Amino acid sequence: MTDTTFPITGRNKVKRAPLRGAYDKASVYAVLDECRICHVGYVVDGQPYVTPTLFWRDGNTLYWHGSSASRMLRTVKTGVNVCVTASLFDGWVMARSGFHHSANYRSVMAYGTARALATEAEKDAALKVMMDGLFPGRWEEIRPSTTQELKATTVVSMDIEQASAKIRCGGPIDDDADYDLPVWAGVLPVRQVQGAPVPDPKMTDGIEFPENLSAYLAE
Amino acid sequence: MTDTTFPITGRNKVKRAPLRGAYDKASVYAVLDECRICHVGYVVDGQPYVTPTLFWRDGNTLYWHGSSASRMLRTVKTGVNVCVTASLFDGWVMARSGFHHSANYRSVMAYGTARALATEAEKDAALKVMMDGLFPGRWEEIRPSTTQELKATTVVSMDIEQASAKIRCGGPIDDDADYDLPVWAGVLPVRQVQGAPVPDPKMTDGIEFPENLSAYLAE
Repeated sequence: MTDTTFPITGRNKVKRAPLRGAYDKASVYAVLDECRICHVGYVVDGQPYVTPTLFWRDGNTLYWHGSSASRMLRTVKTGVNVCVTASLFDGWVMARSGFHHSANYRSVMAYGTARALATEAEKDAALKVMMDGLFPGRWEEIRPSTTQELKATTVVSMDIEQASAKIRCGGPIDDDADYDLPVWAGVLPVRQVQGAPVPDPKMTDGIEFPENLSAYLAE
Repeated sequence: MTDTTFPITGRNKVKRAPLRGAYDKASVYAVLDECRICHVGYVVDGQPYVTPTLFWRDGNTLYWHGSSASRMLRTVKTGVNVCVTASLFDGWVMARSGFHHSANYRSVMAYGTARALATEAEKDAALKVMMDGLFPGRWEEIRPSTTQELKATTVVSMDIEQASAKIRCGGPIDDDADYDLPVWAGVLPVRQVQGAPVPDPKMTDGIEFPENLSAYLAE
């Protein structure tokens, strides 16, 4: 591994559409940082499982968390090989033939060995990084975690050993002979947007929507 | 398996938050049909891989496809156990403590054995089902697939042997003692929307945006 690029082996080499593959950390991190959900792949007795979960990144390390009773977390925290995949669907690519229809997307497959954070202090620090990244300032406003809560929470970290980003963007690429066909072609973009916040009816009176969540107001 | 419910074993039993788990086909299919992308988990030499891909459903069978050169498709078409996970992120659940922060989501984990469709005719029929489901009427407008294109395409099918849906919706559930805290609480909803279509600049003049894609116009 160089400072800026992940090593390329059979595990992370992008086999298809190689021009869309990238192994530099900047590309990999940029996609990961746009994703809130990842899909963690792991194996139990030969059976693959893929669990969706929130995740966050700190340097070259990915974190995810949940109840200590979770099958996924009980399995992956023991130091097994995992594949963490995160993807964003950006739109439909409409071509003049079925074969050249496609999707625009950004995805990362990241490989490493998961381990569980050992102490309540480590877990609390990692959870603060997640909260600060998503909702700056909120950590200081909410009730602090109790020791009991931290014991009931497993936080898993995975240093990224290898990764690849795969990106498709832009319009359709049709066969030369097909461009004259009277078919609408182009891109139908898709994106995620925030809706209007829904206040908890049990909230005490007089609490305004906080400035530090303004990025989550409806567009 | 009954007519309406998947069998529950250790593989698909929802371990965490069991009240959010569902095994009836209606719930599983409803989530799958809202998702365009799934994450296919499979194992090669003990290493888990998770590949994002478009997919579609026909009855109790899931399909996905791609280049015959794809590692994922070359692996899974040989009849291996796969886990297909599809998930929708619906919003952030903001509580008065870190512990009770959550996410609203709908997800399905489906298990089965993948197999490759054998003939070009089978592949063409399956691809038509995908296109008709996404873009009714478009299949008849575009250039038909050639035998060469169908040979270069692998279509994988997986009968769902077992599945579970896991759904979280609604507002935060806080500890009783925390409701008096002066913290904004509620849900910050997220949804996917269509953007404005981007016509291919290489399109011949006079082609209108087709009525059968009107569901993909910007909201």
